[in-house]
Amino acid sequence: MALQMDAAALNVFLAREFPQLGGAFTVLEAGEAGLIARLSVTEAHLRPGGTVSGPSMFALADVAVYCALLSRIGPVALAVTTNASIDFMRKPLAGRDLHAECRLLKLGRLLAVAEALIFSDGQPDPVARCSMTYAIPPARG
Amino acid sequence: MALQMDAAALNVFLAREFPQLGGAFTVLEAGEAGLIARLSVTEAHLRPGGTVSGPSMFALADVAVYCALLSRIGPVALAVTTNASIDFMRKPLAGRDLHAECRLLKLGRLLAVAEALIFSDGQPDPVARCSMTYAIPPARG
Amino acid sequence: MALQMDAAALNVFLAREFPQLGGAFTVLEAGEAGLIARLSVTEAHLRPGGTVSGPSMFALADVAVYCALLSRIGPVALAVTTNASIDFMRKPLAGRDLHAECRLLKLGRLLAVAEALIFSDGQPDPVARCSMTYAIPPARG
Amino acid sequence: MALQMDAAALNVFLAREFPQLGGAFTVLEAGEAGLIARLSVTEAHLRPGGTVSGPSMFALADVAVYCALLSRIGPVALAVTTNASIDFMRKPLAGRDLHAECRLLKLGRLLAVAEALIFSDGQPDPVARCSMTYAIPPARG
Repeated sequence: MALQMDAAALNVFLAREFPQLGGAFTVLEAGEAGLIARLSVTEAHLRPGGTVSGPSMFALADVAVYCALLSRIGPVALAVTTNASIDFMRKPLAGRDLHAECRLLKLGRLLAVAEALIFSDGQPDPVARCSMTYAIPPARG
Repeated sequence: MALQMDAAALNVFLAREFPQLGGAFTVLEAGEAGLIARLSVTEAHLRPGGTVSGPSMFALADVAVYCALLSRIGPVALAVTTNASIDFMRKPLAGRDLHAECRLLKLGRLLAVAEALIFSDGQPDPVARCSMTYAIPPARG
Repeated sequence: MALQMDAAALNVFLAREFPQLGGAFTVLEAGEAGLIARLSVTEAHLRPGGTVSGPSMFALADVAVYCALLSRIGPVALAVTTNASIDFMRKPLAGRDLHAECRLLKLGRLLAVAEALIFSDGQPDPVARCSMTYAIPPARG
Repeated sequence: MALQMDAAALNVFLAREFPQLGGAFTVLEAGEAGLIARLSVTEAHLRPGGTVSGPSMFALADVAVYCALLSRIGPVALAVTTNASIDFMRKPLAGRDLHAECRLLKLGRLLAVAEALIFSDGQPDPVARCSMTYAIPPARG
């Protein structure tokens, strides 16, 4: 399926539609095979021991999956997460950004399913894995 | 099982150990039957259309389950979420706080399992449900 | 919402539409508040150590949630599970049947969400919890 | 990490320890990169419309993950599933076997996490995805 939005277009969309995210998330790559997004980790994302919080990892997976979906169907701001399952497997490294590698497994008329692996920059094994389902609003471009 | 920490003690613990949360979360009740926690919704938690973001609901469930666990085992800052599954079922009401009703289903030696329903204040049906597993560090009080 | 099918009607439906289940599952109660279903445990459901297999517990949760859905929308054989998350918390007792207590949390136009607790007969704490999403085929009624 | 059991050893183990499975499951490949297991679909696994039942797919994922774990830690019959999350994405083809491709994402001292994609033979897109956590009993070889 042809891409409707590339990384640059997705970053413009995020900045315009989600000012609350404060530029913490950046799409690094968006292609046929999947999408990579980064979370620039700041003090606000940390927890005791210098680790990144679970909700911050969840937010990264959510942005990555959302953007992977939009890269295929175009800028539909109202697609919503209906289900997420996440396994936290390792402690992220202190002082490192995180990135998520996301793959769309299903793009149906009503539902899309994707999975994402989250990595701490410079660590080969994933710190978390996540699968998500998005509901796609009926009147899509 | 006797409670090790009540709502007041949990709120003191959250404020001291998790300053990054900025006081957004409050434990309202902690008892034998379960725990209720509130998220004071601010602009930072919102998404297009005035709804509360998924990661904010995830964070509320995480705090509620964590506090439900601590209420039983005492102030163990290092208990960590290993798995979470969340269903987003309804759109939260605009301009309302959220609260989570949490119940501990299992408190084992190594793992604890809990579930939480999240409600928009003033709406009878839950906006989300979540189940979480926490790993408990070996040397616990 | 009025019930479309009671326990007796659901059991007739299961026997007619799902002969492969071989009568292992029985709806015990179906009402406004939820549904209770039983798995009559046989040798085929067991695993080493006399415990009931995970897939058997999954199957019980699936039947319970499916029947809870049908009790509200009528005999729609083609509703399908799209997502399930299950936590196995305790070992079922040897030589005891299991039952699932199921509650519908959302009944939307396209998706339904339910949760179930699974119990070993005679044991107060649940052996497993499960949440499931069903997709409802468009032309229902 | 070195493999402790190859496909042949895993199949011998399954036949000896899990006679209830009736030989329905076969490990096709077990290596460093992951494991592939097959479900020989029979009438007992079917549902209305000729599709394979959800619990059968769950069982295939469970066997695949269990064997992937044993391939690394040796024949520990008592490792148990603690959590599973599964997305059913497409209808399996009628009259075709299923196979699962499984990858171990974490092998810790106490917990292992793996994911599996399930395919209908001859269909390129996965019919389901599953992630599972196993608890590993303390005294392991």
